[in-house]
Amino acid sequence: MSERLSPETRGPLLDPLLKTGWTLAEGEDAICKTFEFENFVEAFGWMTRVAIWAEKWNHHPEWRNVYKTVEVTLTTHDVGGLSALDPKLARKMDGLAGH
Amino acid sequence: MSERLSPETRGPLLDPLLKTGWTLAEGEDAICKTFEFENFVEAFGWMTRVAIWAEKWNHHPEWRNVYKTVEVTLTTHDVGGLSALDPKLARKMDGLAGH
Repeated sequence: MSERLSPETRGPLLDPLLKTGWTLAEGEDAICKTFEFENFVEAFGWMTRVAIWAEKWNHHPEWRNVYKTVEVTLTTHDVGGLSALDPKLARKMDGLAGH
Repeated sequence: MSERLSPETRGPLLDPLLKTGWTLAEGEDAICKTFEFENFVEAFGWMTRVAIWAEKWNHHPEWRNVYKTVEVTLTTHDVGGLSALDPKLARKMDGLAGH
């Protein structure tokens, strides 16, 4: 079971992500990022690779795709906010996008 | 090039879709439907099949996925509203979902 990030762990886990374009959501304990790709094939190809990791880790994103853009929100509903799974998936998303 | 649906063609193309759960969007000339699946693998698997048709037809959906749910909006930005491509992709989506 995951648990909500403690005040002590938030900084070390979240600060690096804030430098790669992630932001803290407003109104909920979540992180967001908009990924831009060259075209739809690149965007959906990236989503497909992310989807396999998400399923493997049983932690799934909220995401919206419009052509070459993917808006992502990550949070852990089971714990009512951010858990260690969120920065883990965020780092994987960045890595798969070459960020 | 696609063109915006004429008043004469809207009914025959859109009415059947309204019976399978599509609705007219509010505030824009678009159609929307929320698809529910058994789980994430089913939802994303369906998206992947749709994505290949969307790219083949060069007509892409706006869609938001949260676990087993996919909210879809279809419109044709080039013509500022619905074109024949939208009901075409909507029917394909329904077919691939078994609706």
